[in-house]
Amino acid sequence: VKSKQWLESINDRLSRQLLFLIEADRLKGVIRGNRIADGSRRENTAEHSWHLALFAMVLCEYAIGDIDVWRVVQMLILHDLVEIEAGDTPLFDSQAALDQAERELLAAIKLFGYLPEQQGTVLRATWEEFEAAESADARFAKALDRLQPILLNHIVGGGTWTDFDVDESRERALTRRIADGAPELWAAAEAVFADAVRNGWLRPMPQ
Amino acid sequence: VKSKQWLESINDRLSRQLLFLIEADRLKGVIRGNRIADGSRRENTAEHSWHLALFAMVLCEYAIGDIDVWRVVQMLILHDLVEIEAGDTPLFDSQAALDQAERELLAAIKLFGYLPEQQGTVLRATWEEFEAAESADARFAKALDRLQPILLNHIVGGGTWTDFDVDESRERALTRRIADGAPELWAAAEAVFADAVRNGWLRPMPQ
Repeated sequence: VKSKQWLESINDRLSRQLLFLIEADRLKGVIRGNRIADGSRRENTAEHSWHLALFAMVLCEYAIGDIDVWRVVQMLILHDLVEIEAGDTPLFDSQAALDQAERELLAAIKLFGYLPEQQGTVLRATWEEFEAAESADARFAKALDRLQPILLNHIVGGGTWTDFDVDESRERALTRRIADGAPELWAAAEAVFADAVRNGWLRPMPQ
Repeated sequence: VKSKQWLESINDRLSRQLLFLIEADRLKGVIRGNRIADGSRRENTAEHSWHLALFAMVLCEYAIGDIDVWRVVQMLILHDLVEIEAGDTPLFDSQAALDQAERELLAAIKLFGYLPEQQGTVLRATWEEFEAAESADARFAKALDRLQPILLNHIVGGGTWTDFDVDESRERALTRRIADGAPELWAAAEAVFADAVRNGWLRPMPQ
């Protein structure tokens, strides 16, 4: 941040909030494995988070249990913010997944720490609830986070399935939590897998 | 969309909702005038919309009137979706602004028309409420939409202010609606303007 002089001229609380929002801008530079739908480039995590919030608004009727869509959307807006510090961990990268939880917790402490204390605590708790994937809201949010890249991989004709030479059984195992949050969306994902296998974009299960 | 065969194998309602979400992906390719905070490239409208949703979550305490933050966030997630069809209209481009409302209304009819009828009507009404800028929710959402590029222009040392040779009085006139939605955020914007003038990133008012 060039010249933060003006931040010193406003009150401390608002100054911390604006600094957090400026730091959060870095999420636009975190690049994910999957491509955007036109295939022109990889997706960044900020636009991915927007897309998921829209998924929640449109698909909330398919959630299992008594969900609060507003809480789901808050989780989705916040869910990958830690990647600013910890980087994106691709679903198919088992090595990076080993210390992912630790790296992300340290990132959360740092990032939410920019905010006024009570506000930072509330937002961090929302992120932790998402991570725990236990509440109905979190399970639905996690389901959407798995569903969106499946649609994008299909549209671009392979995407990370081809990049990581994924077969259908591994893909199903890694995305099966969609069924926990929204069974009808899991049925749609199964239709996508079948079509992707037919087209040669996803390797069939070993016979 | 390559091969929509799988969409035909699921029920019509969900199929329309997924098609809408896939079309919405194009917002990631709509490029705005202002840059992201690291100055490396221009911002796209999808990541801009995510950033604004986060602004609303963090800054809602500064809104005037009795707002519902969840409605504000819905507006912000949807507010620029019409740009998929109508393109982005930069704040400083008076020519493009002439037929902006008409172009955007036609875009809204088309885009929200992908959804099941009742759902499309509700989302379109939310967007129209934002556009009208009359309710407390819409006024706060509009204020955030003006505030965010001010912070980004300052961070990159000029941005669209330099590109369009903007002076402080014109910038104030175009962003004054921040004061309608959140006076304390307008005070922060004034501190940014003063610092930007001091640094030569925003032309001072003509004497």
